[in-house]
Amino acid sequence: MNPPEATLYWEDFVPGAVDEIGRYTFTQEEIIAFATQFDPQPFHTDPEASRGTFYGGLIASGWHTCAIGMRLMVQAYIGRAASAGSPGVENIRWLGPVRPGDTITYRRVILESRPSGSRPEIGLVRSRSEALNQRGEMVMTMEGWGLFRRRPAAD
Amino acid sequence: MNPPEATLYWEDFVPGAVDEIGRYTFTQEEIIAFATQFDPQPFHTDPEASRGTFYGGLIASGWHTCAIGMRLMVQAYIGRAASAGSPGVENIRWLGPVRPGDTITYRRVILESRPSGSRPEIGLVRSRSEALNQRGEMVMTMEGWGLFRRRPAAD
Repeated sequence: MNPPEATLYWEDFVPGAVDEIGRYTFTQEEIIAFATQFDPQPFHTDPEASRGTFYGGLIASGWHTCAIGMRLMVQAYIGRAASAGSPGVENIRWLGPVRPGDTITYRRVILESRPSGSRPEIGLVRSRSEALNQRGEMVMTMEGWGLFRRRPAAD
Repeated sequence: MNPPEATLYWEDFVPGAVDEIGRYTFTQEEIIAFATQFDPQPFHTDPEASRGTFYGGLIASGWHTCAIGMRLMVQAYIGRAASAGSPGVENIRWLGPVRPGDTITYRRVILESRPSGSRPEIGLVRSRSEALNQRGEMVMTMEGWGLFRRRPAAD
């Protein structure tokens, strides 16, 4: 995709840049709703039963933490970028629990950047997403490549 | 967690085993609903606008494909296993589009298995998930470790 309104191109993703992408407070209702649909294990869906598990209470599905991160990335920059999708994600680490009421801050670190070898109009950007709770504890990290179109030549 | 009703333990996951986990048909309505919440890019949410993108039509968010795989795994075996969670997932590859009406078959391959070095009651299982469409084309793969309790000694 290269929307007419795109304002961010491959050249705008500079290795070393660290940016806050957004924050999100996970409610018990949303944790249960997501997990009921996609990860129906008791420690994600049942406040009572979750107390007897080794998590000691309700926690969000790790996929929920990832999905909210995706939404915040689209809202923060992918939605106005000349994005050409992503071939995948590496090394998702669920490092700590996300509990009802936790406010998670998502941060993006640009790791590396290179032009595509096969498609001259495209560049690749490798970044790490980090999710931290309100106590500054890292709860999730993941890495991945994004594809972006290169900035068109000026008129 | 070690539910009283658990019937699957670490010992039951045998390297080399290949099993179909389940099938799911993605509807346009569900593709749009998921993406509106978690991945609001036009090629995931807007049938009209998606035609002008390089995907040539609506496709499911890659996170949707993952989340449905998680649900099918819980339904097929995690829900009756002595599961102790997962530290993460590696190497998610979105290899091809999932379009409205596609029926995706999820398959699990057990890659390796070992006892925990630090927790004698736990074992680790590494598996790969593969998702194939109705034409047998691989649309997604991912790998990850699961933690399971070891089978209690017989009385």
